[in-house]
Amino acid sequence: MQPKAGIITIGDELLIGQVIDTNSAWIAQQLNQIGIDVIKRVAVGDNYEAIWQTIESLEKEVAIIIITGGLGPTADDITKPLLCHYFGGKMVIDKATEAHLEHIFKEVLKRPMIERNRKQAEVPDVCTVLLNKVGTAPGMQFQKEECLYFSLPGVPHEMKWIMQNSILPMLKNKYGNYVVLHETLLTAGIGESFLAERLQTFEANLPSNIQLAYLPNYGMVRLRLTAKGLDSNQLKESLCEQFELLKKQVNTHLVTDKDQPLEEVVGDLLLENKATVSTAESCTGGYIAHLLSSRPGASAYFWGSIVSYHNDVKQHNLGVDATILSTNGAVSEETVTAMAQNVRKQMGTNYSIAVSGILGPGGGTPDKPVGTVWIAAAGEQKTVAKKFNFHFDRERNKQLTTINALNLLRMLIVDNS
Amino acid sequence: MQPKAGIITIGDELLIGQVIDTNSAWIAQQLNQIGIDVIKRVAVGDNYEAIWQTIESLEKEVAIIIITGGLGPTADDITKPLLCHYFGGKMVIDKATEAHLEHIFKEVLKRPMIERNRKQAEVPDVCTVLLNKVGTAPGMQFQKEECLYFSLPGVPHEMKWIMQNSILPMLKNKYGNYVVLHETLLTAGIGESFLAERLQTFEANLPSNIQLAYLPNYGMVRLRLTAKGLDSNQLKESLCEQFELLKKQVNTHLVTDKDQPLEEVVGDLLLENKATVSTAESCTGGYIAHLLSSRPGASAYFWGSIVSYHNDVKQHNLGVDATILSTNGAVSEETVTAMAQNVRKQMGTNYSIAVSGILGPGGGTPDKPVGTVWIAAAGEQKTVAKKFNFHFDRERNKQLTTINALNLLRMLIVDNS
Repeated sequence: MQPKAGIITIGDELLIGQVIDTNSAWIAQQLNQIGIDVIKRVAVGDNYEAIWQTIESLEKEVAIIIITGGLGPTADDITKPLLCHYFGGKMVIDKATEAHLEHIFKEVLKRPMIERNRKQAEVPDVCTVLLNKVGTAPGMQFQKEECLYFSLPGVPHEMKWIMQNSILPMLKNKYGNYVVLHETLLTAGIGESFLAERLQTFEANLPSNIQLAYLPNYGMVRLRLTAKGLDSNQLKESLCEQFELLKKQVNTHLVTDKDQPLEEVVGDLLLENKATVSTAESCTGGYIAHLLSSRPGASAYFWGSIVSYHNDVKQHNLGVDATILSTNGAVSEETVTAMAQNVRKQMGTNYSIAVSGILGPGGGTPDKPVGTVWIAAAGEQKTVAKKFNFHFDRERNKQLTTINALNLLRMLIVDNS
Repeated sequence: MQPKAGIITIGDELLIGQVIDTNSAWIAQQLNQIGIDVIKRVAVGDNYEAIWQTIESLEKEVAIIIITGGLGPTADDITKPLLCHYFGGKMVIDKATEAHLEHIFKEVLKRPMIERNRKQAEVPDVCTVLLNKVGTAPGMQFQKEECLYFSLPGVPHEMKWIMQNSILPMLKNKYGNYVVLHETLLTAGIGESFLAERLQTFEANLPSNIQLAYLPNYGMVRLRLTAKGLDSNQLKESLCEQFELLKKQVNTHLVTDKDQPLEEVVGDLLLENKATVSTAESCTGGYIAHLLSSRPGASAYFWGSIVSYHNDVKQHNLGVDATILSTNGAVSEETVTAMAQNVRKQMGTNYSIAVSGILGPGGGTPDKPVGTVWIAAAGEQKTVAKKFNFHFDRERNKQLTTINALNLLRMLIVDNS
């Protein structure tokens, strides 16, 4: 059986909501992939007693504790002395870390190393130091009875580097026999309740070691099957069989049978079809372009975008007819159709997306209330345009516009393929 | 003294890292503003025992527990029956919620209401129902001895609506006398350790009810002063005094003395100067435009963008000379300078930003390794261009490029003002 793990994140900034914790999600994902379940994640402030008590309570429930944050060079960081005390050690200079710090300051940062930085080489003598090649605060590993404790800096890329280079290989080596497998698919155009009705029998008939979870987000529902066990081959086979059944159940609502965001689904479709895309965005302000270009290698299919937030830009840079803008308005079928067709021609791409809408909170009219959005997708033969009415806040309306725009393009490409 | 609060978020998706928890940060922020400290945040999976045990353990530490998630209509949601059992009630149909559900399905969703949806009107008879006007799962309030428990749906805009319309007004009314005040400023161009050296005496001399925290992020450091106490006027005065001292200490490194992101600092500067901006983006793919347009009212200063991911777009749509591109390359001072000047002219804005770089992981050369980015900011009189070398992954390099581009523009506007 695999050990259970817990994550502790330290920092007042997490508790007053100034910073969103993305570290925990990433760590959980990585551990999950090697079959280690995270059963609890706790965030505590920069408070000695609260941290102490959290460790003490969590070690009763799990065999692996990963702690992030609280290792920086400033006075609000208290984790290191606490751990030293907790595990009954005393602070010593770690020579390897000190040498690494000297190297970083001399060769990379090219500035003098001050005493406060040198202190980062101090570690409890009861820990194993985990090299942090991409930063100044070293990771630390402790052991007490059967429980393993890891303390990592809170800076995401430093935490990730130490996880990938020290902790994950070690845990994989130690606990590599248990298997957790996931298969995930994405659906569009069907609500969570209707999906649940449709999948009732399927779910009831699932083998006991496979579970189904619903992950609704922005008008699309992701379905995840999780299989756990010891026999990797048998598990793979059984999961594959159930996943095929699940795909049949969701039928035409299936967007992808991979665990990937919609912009990557669209990217893959474009790659398969050796096609290219451009966008003309008003209310989304470049967000669709940002998503389409977020993956390495996006330059194979994403050409560019004209963000026309102001109507003058729609007219002069995108070439939307002034009469269309004055007669039909910026948020209209005619305008998005022209935007999509013109950006496609101007950038010489096979496909394009255009959006224009009123995300709110202001700018609504009786005819076109806040949440009215027109979306168009254009190809060589055909342009499709569709009107949406979203009922949420600005940020959520932007996300919904983006998802629906990408989905409209996806359907157009699938139609053409 | 104010009560302490704890947050419990429920959902396997949070533990396997498929979803990032943004709810907790928002709730913590809201509670903090009315003087209620969140001392612990716990995320647990869809597991009956784990949830039960978490509530039992947290109620010993805090007087307010806010639980989000686990209230949807599907089978992996188990919170409601658990709470019913925990507080010793039985499930009954809440008439008001049922009527609201019927209304939503008939008037908003315009589709038949199925039995699974009607079940969402079932609540434990020992709770006070909190109306959820923007969704189908109602919020619930329980009390046991001196502890208050709130259970809310995990969908962010529904959770927010119930917090804003029921819970926050009630808590504010009940505990309104204690005060927590924050002042936050943002610095650029100085590392955390150097800041800490410079602020050592300042920090040591702070009154005991005021604390300083360092929040480094993407090459900028945010500094937050937090004051706690009962006498609002005295507290305001004392915090204000210390904040002025702090501003003097950071001196020219001060970017803003408000708690706002850099894109809003730039937006405010543009508004003050009645100036407009456009962007020409290569490697950031529209992300700078997205940020500049993210705030309501952005149309007063943000005109648009030409995202030129492909070199053809740089040449044909942005009018960068083919000779410049072939001689100096797309990532060069000459190219970003032309990009910035051309987009400014084409869109008729007072200012513009242009970026071109290699974010990685591929695309680097010995001359221009991964992380090489050229950024330009142009105004009517002057164009400044600067080369950066970032050493991180694609996502982080994109963030750093964006922050530095916005900061370069900020400095140009300040110079001109």
